Amino acid sequence: MTYEINETHDPNLKSWVESANDPNTDFPIQNLPFCEFDHPQRKFPALGVVIGDYVLDLETCDLADFYYGEPEPGLELVAGNIGSLTSLMVKPWEYRESIRWHISFLLRDTADKEIQSLVGRHLFPRSEVTPEIPYGLIGDYTDFYCSIYHATNVGSMFRPDNPLLPNYKYVPIGYHGRASSIVISGTDIKRPHGQNRSDAEAPPVFIPCKNLDYEMEVGFFVGQGNDLGTSIPIGDAEKHIFGLCLVNDWSARDIQAWEYQPLGPFLAKNFATTISPFVVTMEALAPFRTKAFEREEGDPAPLDYLADDNNEKFGGIDINLEVFIQSEKMRNENVAPHLLSKSNMKDLYWTIGQMLTHHASNGCNLQTGDLIATGTISGKEKSARGSMLELSWRGTEPIELPNGETRRFLEDGDEIIMKGYCEREGFRRIGFGECRGRILPAD
Amino acid sequence: MTYEINETHDPNLKSWVESANDPNTDFPIQNLPFCEFDHPQRKFPALGVVIGDYVLDLETCDLADFYYGEPEPGLELVAGNIGSLTSLMVKPWEYRESIRWHISFLLRDTADKEIQSLVGRHLFPRSEVTPEIPYGLIGDYTDFYCSIYHATNVGSMFRPDNPLLPNYKYVPIGYHGRASSIVISGTDIKRPHGQNRSDAEAPPVFIPCKNLDYEMEVGFFVGQGNDLGTSIPIGDAEKHIFGLCLVNDWSARDIQAWEYQPLGPFLAKNFATTISPFVVTMEALAPFRTKAFEREEGDPAPLDYLADDNNEKFGGIDINLEVFIQSEKMRNENVAPHLLSKSNMKDLYWTIGQMLTHHASNGCNLQTGDLIATGTISGKEKSARGSMLELSWRGTEPIELPNGETRRFLEDGDEIIMKGYCEREGFRRIGFGECRGRILPAD
Repeated sequence: MTYEINETHDPNLKSWVESANDPNTDFPIQNLPFCEFDHPQRKFPALGVVIGDYVLDLETCDLADFYYGEPEPGLELVAGNIGSLTSLMVKPWEYRESIRWHISFLLRDTADKEIQSLVGRHLFPRSEVTPEIPYGLIGDYTDFYCSIYHATNVGSMFRPDNPLLPNYKYVPIGYHGRASSIVISGTDIKRPHGQNRSDAEAPPVFIPCKNLDYEMEVGFFVGQGNDLGTSIPIGDAEKHIFGLCLVNDWSARDIQAWEYQPLGPFLAKNFATTISPFVVTMEALAPFRTKAFEREEGDPAPLDYLADDNNEKFGGIDINLEVFIQSEKMRNENVAPHLLSKSNMKDLYWTIGQMLTHHASNGCNLQTGDLIATGTISGKEKSARGSMLELSWRGTEPIELPNGETRRFLEDGDEIIMKGYCEREGFRRIGFGECRGRILPAD
Repeated sequence: MTYEINETHDPNLKSWVESANDPNTDFPIQNLPFCEFDHPQRKFPALGVVIGDYVLDLETCDLADFYYGEPEPGLELVAGNIGSLTSLMVKPWEYRESIRWHISFLLRDTADKEIQSLVGRHLFPRSEVTPEIPYGLIGDYTDFYCSIYHATNVGSMFRPDNPLLPNYKYVPIGYHGRASSIVISGTDIKRPHGQNRSDAEAPPVFIPCKNLDYEMEVGFFVGQGNDLGTSIPIGDAEKHIFGLCLVNDWSARDIQAWEYQPLGPFLAKNFATTISPFVVTMEALAPFRTKAFEREEGDPAPLDYLADDNNEKFGGIDINLEVFIQSEKMRNENVAPHLLSKSNMKDLYWTIGQMLTHHASNGCNLQTGDLIATGTISGKEKSARGSMLELSWRGTEPIELPNGETRRFLEDGDEIIMKGYCEREGFRRIGFGECRGRILPAD
């Protein structure tokens, strides 16, 4: 299964791509995340795999040319080049595992010099490529609400007597988001207009959002889907998950407060959602699996359709998540981005397998490339709150920046930088790269 | 603009396709709705226009071949065949208007015999074609909640003291639906499983839905979209609307009641949504435009970004909507489908122009082919309630069927048939065809 550790995770593996051996890189040979990328020398975007400071072009580099030795289990599946991220995602997970083996062999420093030279021709410096979201990839976007700490924090602000709703410990709560406005890291975010009724005595006004916020989330892409009317047993859930990226679910809190009853957030969220460009596969994350959330004494067990031994033992993923802010003034003064929070994906109440199984439990058809996000990932501690709403406690406790500025919510020119990485004793650190976005003023 | 009446709406126009002159047809020459269709003689699905009992294949029938006389304004735009519904939707609305003129000329009984014979070769009997939703057409699906009667009914059941929330008269309330599970009329609907907590004293159970329901809605397709970060002024809204279809927003009420707090309906809706296959264009609906909803004395006026003289005068659409049920027993006994309700789209509190403008008001990018639905269309009268939830008042007032059966909610084997049509003195009746779906038992 996707959480099995094998030779591709060996911390001693080194690559002939030197930058991949840098202890600080997010992209050693143990990671190998995929992306769709464009480059001035290419006619159209294509599938790449990230290694150190480079992207290997998998559309021009025909892996079959470099087939040598005994095939690993399933490796015989890999033949011919793979044109796009979508065409890789649609494949069975065993194929993905086998391509990981193959790429790992080719990029190891033990590969033949000739192979190194031939493969090397298909490397582009990462600084020169433009990662993209493949056109039409994300058919549907779903956002969950799976951090009990986040749900409790938000609930405490809006319903002090009853912070956590009775369904929370039974239902992985989720809702549909907007697919069209998902943008890739680095895209500027224009402050949205919307109805604001912060003065309850007066009619609402249509003005630029006042309480603009970010949410630190992780998203996963659906690999193979399911047909309408069929479900996905929890034991098979991870076979349908391709890999993970970071997600910033930008949120307009004043719009949200006024519009969200009774059907949930709408314009408060759908003006933009930013994702990091490199998809870290489930296989790469194998060494960082943890047990599912330890429910408190007295908490109900998950209902049967969401319960599974392997999910219990390996359903969690230990990913450190960091959010930084750099204001325009900080940039001008060369003040480094300031760490706002540090949380961890393993603290989610529900596993991604449970999210996926729940999503399809009514027969809803998930499709290759669908993006499913976890919801804001907050931890128990104050320093682990994954949104500014929580950090500034709805604006009542302003945050101090290192240059003396303060923030209740985001201001124009602020840039939010999210990072994610996995560390474990005895394994190589792997990372997600960055998920960045800067706020532009409203029109 | 799209609500201007012209020669194509002349009630005296007749077609050489005889079935189009039947006074009971939904598809006279004054209608001309579009669809994507497949046929055993075709290699792939294509764009068609419906005329009487036939579909004219617009992929093989090159309109430019039949160009004759003086071009109507904009008619020179039409040259060459149009392959797909998507490629038509993406065109500016003037193009759509011009193609309507062109097709109307070709199909009139005044057309040359030679033209009739040449065009006639591209007609398929409607009974032989399979309408389809073009692959990838519907990028995002949004569902509004724009019937104040529906909102008040539902609110009364769940919040008797406070049926209508304070935002309702300011905000066209909407939420994101699931695009992948939209199916075309005639597709069977499998009863979904889900968490049910009708017994508040016991933990929820995962069982087949008990309170399965339909919702009578109308949907509109986005023609030309807007870029992310830009909005659509209310005066331009209709230029971005291609046309309308009927929508059945199937709803699992027991799942909905338990899951919908705080982020709105999710699995209660995303197992299936049925649409009628023939898209009636805004141009065809011109004679049936009405003024926007007349707000009660004391109701707030729409905020400026949602207000416009033309929207006030022509924003409504007078479409009669009917819902029928036929149970399995009724089918076996040859009992005709039973009329459950009759409502009208003109009773919506918000116009489709306001829905579209509101949707894009925060910079959200709408894209060609997006489907936006109105929400359940109920009227003031009991007989105009557009869902079974309302008709049976949450199951407390069972509905009697003509053969003695009763219904609180839908049972296996029940078929729901929705119809929509426009009638106005001095104009030809036009219709939407049917939106049908039959309930299959849960697995």
